[in-house]
Amino acid sequence: MLSGGVGGARFARGLKAALGPDELTIIGNVGDDLEVLGLAVSPDLDSILYTLAGLSDDERGWGRAGETWNALAAAAEWGGEDWFRIGDLDLGLHLVRTRALREGASLSEVTARLVAEAGLRVELLPASDDPLRTHVVTPAGTFSFQEWFVARGHVDEVDAVVFDGAHSARPAPRVRDALAEADAILIAPSNPFVSIGPILAVPGLRESIEQRRVRCVGVSPLIGGRAVKGPADRMLSRMGGGTTPAHVAACYEGLVDKLVIDEADAPAEAPVELVVAQTLMTDGAAAQRLAEVVLENACV
Amino acid sequence: MLSGGVGGARFARGLKAALGPDELTIIGNVGDDLEVLGLAVSPDLDSILYTLAGLSDDERGWGRAGETWNALAAAAEWGGEDWFRIGDLDLGLHLVRTRALREGASLSEVTARLVAEAGLRVELLPASDDPLRTHVVTPAGTFSFQEWFVARGHVDEVDAVVFDGAHSARPAPRVRDALAEADAILIAPSNPFVSIGPILAVPGLRESIEQRRVRCVGVSPLIGGRAVKGPADRMLSRMGGGTTPAHVAACYEGLVDKLVIDEADAPAEAPVELVVAQTLMTDGAAAQRLAEVVLENACV
Repeated sequence: MLSGGVGGARFARGLKAALGPDELTIIGNVGDDLEVLGLAVSPDLDSILYTLAGLSDDERGWGRAGETWNALAAAAEWGGEDWFRIGDLDLGLHLVRTRALREGASLSEVTARLVAEAGLRVELLPASDDPLRTHVVTPAGTFSFQEWFVARGHVDEVDAVVFDGAHSARPAPRVRDALAEADAILIAPSNPFVSIGPILAVPGLRESIEQRRVRCVGVSPLIGGRAVKGPADRMLSRMGGGTTPAHVAACYEGLVDKLVIDEADAPAEAPVELVVAQTLMTDGAAAQRLAEVVLENACV
Repeated sequence: MLSGGVGGARFARGLKAALGPDELTIIGNVGDDLEVLGLAVSPDLDSILYTLAGLSDDERGWGRAGETWNALAAAAEWGGEDWFRIGDLDLGLHLVRTRALREGASLSEVTARLVAEAGLRVELLPASDDPLRTHVVTPAGTFSFQEWFVARGHVDEVDAVVFDGAHSARPAPRVRDALAEADAILIAPSNPFVSIGPILAVPGLRESIEQRRVRCVGVSPLIGGRAVKGPADRMLSRMGGGTTPAHVAACYEGLVDKLVIDEADAPAEAPVELVVAQTLMTDGAAAQRLAEVVLENACV
């Protein structure tokens, strides 16, 4: 499964419930990663980790449940940055990750340790251990993903997305093998441009999926042509020409055999087979039902 | 003023109240400094900073009032160390300091920024910007200061104190000038071995005080031959031969002209003039009264 943050994390929770232990491998986006207060933060990997570990704040939609915000407030008192909201519980993870990275571990090694500490029987792989950072080109200028998304509240329309470092980024260990060995490849209901795009920008990964011998099924992130959360619909309108299932399918041309769309978007036509389902993952049960539909359509 | 942590911090608060703005320069111990979860922690400098800024937890005796402990608990969940207690509010300062150090600032530059952020009109100087770390030699082995003090609860008797890095440590900028320009030099009621000792171990600083043209007055950390807190009395017994004012004075031979002792330790004899006062700093007013006695005896 290829995954961005929150939507992907919820879909991963459904897949984990529908599959047996050690049957799920998630390739996570690292294009949103950033350094905050000197700490290495991987928002999408963390959303997946927190959601699978039952630690996520599902109401807020990101971060941990029961979170407090004292360290960030204190840092700001001493002149530190506080534009990127990091809670105290969240900070604990970033401290452990950052120290491990500084001691020479790779992001995939650290991530595997965190998955093991959480007692999870899934494989969570960053798309790359190398720095690959998403930037968005807007009428107001080019911004790093988080500067645009968080600091500017993603108000700027996006004309293009670029992935700094993609040219020299290598797939993290196990990523290509995982794609080659998979019984099915799934693309989560994540933003095609800024969540799945950075994964596909790692040299070799798009080709790995294009040359698949198994089915690849994508799930549209739109419901009734609208994003559940975030700017996916606006980006599809401006960069993809529209928000119909055909426009979503076009983002994954040559990559998906089927696209799962919400009932609200049916009937529709697209160059790939469309599967209609309820895609809103209101809770774990809904996520599992969606996962089961996707797996039925993905596994031959 | 030469200062260790809590006792020195309280004395500094009294001096700050007794003096005008910009009249107090504090040279702080860095021998206790350590790295925790990849963060640079300076416990003594922070005790001084928090106490002067009115942020300290006077009941607990260290750290900040209103502290929470969520980040450390979360770090431990992910496999991080939690033997050294760092609260969330405290963490905010360590994050800001660590990032500034990694960006190339010196400890004294960072400390000056923190003092300015707190709006304090005092000068707080680390004894050295270079790594100088206190280790204690005990029957159970040699330990770093915090390993002995915190992790082992300072149960081991101390036979000797060594200062790793002292040989090549240089006084931080302004330290020698501050000693040369001072109207009086004061030694806080801190542990002579592990709080004041590391300051005097920085090459040149002992000599700066020995060659003073002003008075130097020390304050004994003992009351009735006992430490208010911590292992100063046990260390004086074992390494200094006793806990009388004469034994305390011997720690500062050639360095102090007078030693302020508590009423509980009088009458006593020592090779330097003894000044009797109430030295227990139960609150800010008591600290200010002690500071005023010391200043009267220090300023010619």
